Amino acid sequence: MTGRAPQTLQINLGDRSYPIVIGAGLLDDADVVTGHVTARDVLVVTNETVGPLYAARLLAGLAGKRVRTLELPDGEQYKTLAVLERVFDALIEARLNRDACVVALGGGVVGDMAGFAAACYQRGVDFVQVPTTLLAQVDSAVGGKTGVNHPGGKNLIGAFHQPRAVLSDLGTLRTLPPRELRAGLAEVIKYGLVDAADFLAWIEANVEPLLALDMDALAYAVRRSCEIKARIVAADEREHGQRALLNLGHTFGHAIETAAGYGEWLHGEAVALGMLLAADLSQRLGYIGTTDVARVRELLRRAELPTTAPAIGAALALDLMGMDKKVLQGRIRLVLLRQLGAGIVTGDYPAEALQATLRSHFEVAA
Amino acid sequence: MTGRAPQTLQINLGDRSYPIVIGAGLLDDADVVTGHVTARDVLVVTNETVGPLYAARLLAGLAGKRVRTLELPDGEQYKTLAVLERVFDALIEARLNRDACVVALGGGVVGDMAGFAAACYQRGVDFVQVPTTLLAQVDSAVGGKTGVNHPGGKNLIGAFHQPRAVLSDLGTLRTLPPRELRAGLAEVIKYGLVDAADFLAWIEANVEPLLALDMDALAYAVRRSCEIKARIVAADEREHGQRALLNLGHTFGHAIETAAGYGEWLHGEAVALGMLLAADLSQRLGYIGTTDVARVRELLRRAELPTTAPAIGAALALDLMGMDKKVLQGRIRLVLLRQLGAGIVTGDYPAEALQATLRSHFEVAA
Repeated sequence: MTGRAPQTLQINLGDRSYPIVIGAGLLDDADVVTGHVTARDVLVVTNETVGPLYAARLLAGLAGKRVRTLELPDGEQYKTLAVLERVFDALIEARLNRDACVVALGGGVVGDMAGFAAACYQRGVDFVQVPTTLLAQVDSAVGGKTGVNHPGGKNLIGAFHQPRAVLSDLGTLRTLPPRELRAGLAEVIKYGLVDAADFLAWIEANVEPLLALDMDALAYAVRRSCEIKARIVAADEREHGQRALLNLGHTFGHAIETAAGYGEWLHGEAVALGMLLAADLSQRLGYIGTTDVARVRELLRRAELPTTAPAIGAALALDLMGMDKKVLQGRIRLVLLRQLGAGIVTGDYPAEALQATLRSHFEVAA
Repeated sequence: MTGRAPQTLQINLGDRSYPIVIGAGLLDDADVVTGHVTARDVLVVTNETVGPLYAARLLAGLAGKRVRTLELPDGEQYKTLAVLERVFDALIEARLNRDACVVALGGGVVGDMAGFAAACYQRGVDFVQVPTTLLAQVDSAVGGKTGVNHPGGKNLIGAFHQPRAVLSDLGTLRTLPPRELRAGLAEVIKYGLVDAADFLAWIEANVEPLLALDMDALAYAVRRSCEIKARIVAADEREHGQRALLNLGHTFGHAIETAAGYGEWLHGEAVALGMLLAADLSQRLGYIGTTDVARVRELLRRAELPTTAPAIGAALALDLMGMDKKVLQGRIRLVLLRQLGAGIVTGDYPAEALQATLRSHFEVAA
């Protein structure tokens, strides 16, 4: 599929609108790269895993510009203020000014940190996302959320800062570890569950081609995912309302990630399990049936995603959920499923139902 | 003047509009305080100097809310990412959520850091400025610029984040060290030089009452300064154009502060000298006359502000200016004076003229 023309989607956010370009082999297309990275001074932020694989190819397309490259350590556990400081150091050492552009080449961690550095450096410079993981291509690179973790919780420190462009080269997924591909697939499943029953059915029919890196299937999955996210973000950039739908599974998932220690569970894995818990609670509230919950569980199983929680206990899980950003006035608002393909954001549920869901998943079996 | 009713100015920035309340004794007016700090959960960020003087009075007005107080060390040298992390730690320890409000009680350093923490915490929570220095009341608390320094330059890491309100209690200026009062006066003079010849003349006629803490004179100076800043910020919130006028003296001043080490020169002192250098360069370009430069020097002298630069050499000064945020495409754009009371932002001047200004001020006399 490498020869196929890339597709372009537009995110509509007024003067912060930007394109998402999706295709196999984009990295080697200098016209695409320089068409979107227009600054003369560029800092490419990548990591020690992705850099050796793709930085040289990206840099070839940036020939003629002043380009520096910074390699960060690889892993969610490095998404910290301390590591962020290295990005600032690199920007300042290179004496980059307000016209510079930061390019994030890597997965969600690289994109979140490079984007947050771009948001803060000189109170905001341009940045371009070149996501190389499925999770970043369908989710974290799109929508402008940037930030770092704190020992007290994920993504607690950050900014909304929209990229100038997102360049998603599907070819980079060929070197992605299968576990990370599956974690990205969790977010694809999320879009189906929360917004599009037809897309959910398409995913159910295409799990195996997606896991086998069929480029046609991936192109469709990435495009549909970005379309859904783009529409929701355009309507609610700063998450005052429906953007919270995109957090399906995330409140439960954050608790799992925090309890396990960053880096133990992949974000997408925690979200997958979190979606199953959201389905469980939705069923306890009578929104969906037990067969719907089973359908979610079966899809996750086929996608080789976790369906069993760590035995951290319901009390700790609840405590860790309480620190989440989506808490309003002490109430835990959650994304639940009114049906498969239609999410709702609500704090209107009995605490007992939530407790029952947590107990049924987080307690050690007797 | 304590009994006089406070004055309120409005900053017009669409859905980010906010009031500036100016008056002596505001801190003790619980109606004013709770009228603007409406959140239930509050983190008051102050420093070890201001906290013991005023925190208890502010907290009395916040009775009934859940309030934590964090005291930072006092001084520009602590305006760093490392100290900022303490603010994040306090927010997270207190488990504050998106509805919380950060209140900055102190001068420019406290306001910049508390504001930046509020900008980043959970990607943005409310904050209220309670400035207790003249510089903060007329400048840094107004306009939404927040951030921290980096060893490579001042304010290189930050965000635009507007406060919900600015509460300027003129009574707090009674405990301000005279040197800091004078530093604040430098920014008041800046507004006159850059935007308002009539205000400049008023300042010339009122330097002594201002230095003697005459509350009527201070109220007028703070109000006029905020009016000028509010108008310019409303027209250009993110400094794409005329907001840069407010940086008169700052590019030169940043070089002085960086060379001397943070904390050696007060910001306002460096700006004062920077304004004199800007006047010098404006005269070399034929915009203003030597009598105008002498008039600026005389006003600074009467305000007991520095008029002599440290002998760091013209080369280092230029180098340090080159790292400034106001650099565009390698050109050093400067704020100059077309006449006293009318600034311009320009990169259109011969490099030789800038060099001559730097040599005449930064070289050791033979």
